[in-house]
Amino acid sequence: MTETRFADAQWFTEVATECGSAFSLEIRAKVHEQQTPFQKIEVWETKRWGYLMVIDGFVMLSSRDNFLYHEMMAHVPLFTHLDPRHVLIIGGGDCGTLREVLRHPQVETAWQVDIDEGVTRASEKFFPELCESNNDPRARLHFEDGIKWVKEGEAESVDVIIVDSTDPIGPAEGLFTEAFYRDCLKMLRPGGLLVQQSESPLLHMQILKEMHHAMRGAGYADVRTYQFPQPVYPSGWWSATMARKGRVIDSFREAEALAAPEKFGTKYYTADIHRAAFAMPAFFRREIG
Amino acid sequence: MTETRFADAQWFTEVATECGSAFSLEIRAKVHEQQTPFQKIEVWETKRWGYLMVIDGFVMLSSRDNFLYHEMMAHVPLFTHLDPRHVLIIGGGDCGTLREVLRHPQVETAWQVDIDEGVTRASEKFFPELCESNNDPRARLHFEDGIKWVKEGEAESVDVIIVDSTDPIGPAEGLFTEAFYRDCLKMLRPGGLLVQQSESPLLHMQILKEMHHAMRGAGYADVRTYQFPQPVYPSGWWSATMARKGRVIDSFREAEALAAPEKFGTKYYTADIHRAAFAMPAFFRREIG
Repeated sequence: MTETRFADAQWFTEVATECGSAFSLEIRAKVHEQQTPFQKIEVWETKRWGYLMVIDGFVMLSSRDNFLYHEMMAHVPLFTHLDPRHVLIIGGGDCGTLREVLRHPQVETAWQVDIDEGVTRASEKFFPELCESNNDPRARLHFEDGIKWVKEGEAESVDVIIVDSTDPIGPAEGLFTEAFYRDCLKMLRPGGLLVQQSESPLLHMQILKEMHHAMRGAGYADVRTYQFPQPVYPSGWWSATMARKGRVIDSFREAEALAAPEKFGTKYYTADIHRAAFAMPAFFRREIG
Repeated sequence: MTETRFADAQWFTEVATECGSAFSLEIRAKVHEQQTPFQKIEVWETKRWGYLMVIDGFVMLSSRDNFLYHEMMAHVPLFTHLDPRHVLIIGGGDCGTLREVLRHPQVETAWQVDIDEGVTRASEKFFPELCESNNDPRARLHFEDGIKWVKEGEAESVDVIIVDSTDPIGPAEGLFTEAFYRDCLKMLRPGGLLVQQSESPLLHMQILKEMHHAMRGAGYADVRTYQFPQPVYPSGWWSATMARKGRVIDSFREAEALAAPEKFGTKYYTADIHRAAFAMPAFFRREIG
């Protein structure tokens, strides 16, 4: 919601009702509003965070801090996989994850399957830097239902699946189920990786526990959660959870990851950050082990 | 400030004006308000974060997430030092850092020097769990000016100095100067450690750069920043900076740190978290090296 308060400035506020917290950014103007067949997309020009995209009232990304999320969603699985040639992104309509994936020279095909074309069109307009690889010949943009795509997908056809979705309520709910994870497992080649954003370790431990349970239930050999800051999401502390087909997650291509800041221009991701992100809090280990 | 909005709930909001962001917690009632000779202390009962202490309008801590800050301010330096017997806390009036320091059996004396007794009295009332070690015979609570205390302090009398202060504006400004760091250096024994909260890596890189410069200028042999989540502070992403007298910061007592979750009951801190916290983002390394 927006309001004029706090010393007469105008603000966009997202209330995390069940968490008893709210986060606000000072805005200059609303620059986009669109009701698509799937959701309501709004874009605001903020005072100090660039543009802000909001879907159904929930903050998706800002120009200032989306590098944290996109780099950690893409480079952690892509440097963990030994040879990531074929990558499938479910959701990710803002194209920021796609851009990071395509920095990897081994990648031959990157499919982005987001149900809502409106997100990509709005991103092209207000976050053009995230869309700069959309015309890469390796990129395949599809505007379709990711759940159906994976259900009908060819067995053992991809190396990495990145689920870059909204929260597990509403349209994205089906992306957090054991049935979906099983369909992903089928599409992955041996040693393949599934990674999904997994909410805040402080606020959403129940969701995290259920994800671990569902991924293990679907038949993955290993499931690991990693953490990173994401200031525009509730608590500012976020996580992703990665599952592997047929082998444990115990190493990554460190020598290549070391070159990421210089070669890929990463702002957050480094080989040290990759390793460090898997260190989980004592309370997390007590609950998930 | 407080307001009634967001579906008729009542909220406390801290506006980070220069950052163009704001953070709010849903509250039930104000339970304490006091103007001391130094500052205005307020305590709120929140709906989902326990109690919230606010000084001069700035969030200090909540019952729900203060463990992150207190564990990282205490255990990182105390497990880095080889034999931390004498510890000085500057600020820290809520006593949470003191409690964590006193979990270390080697500690013989822990001085807490906060200018404002009002903070400790309010904490005893609303955060009694943080004050449970205040009567430990090793604890020495002084309500005095920390800058003066360190200036007049005995040379080579302490092993670790923890500066647990408010932001570098207002009363705490003098705690972020080269002169103060030099007085701390004098009080430290060889190999001793100074650690200070150092704001948000996303929002306050200028302060971080100045701290590194001032600590090196004061004569410390090594200066290292580490990061951790702190949801109630702007951006939810916080840091501390540690400087060492006469030797580099290149290891910690890992075998003992491994036992911290079981022995000390830490909720966030583990040996893995300790090591991981020093992995800094690519942009940080570009600016501070």
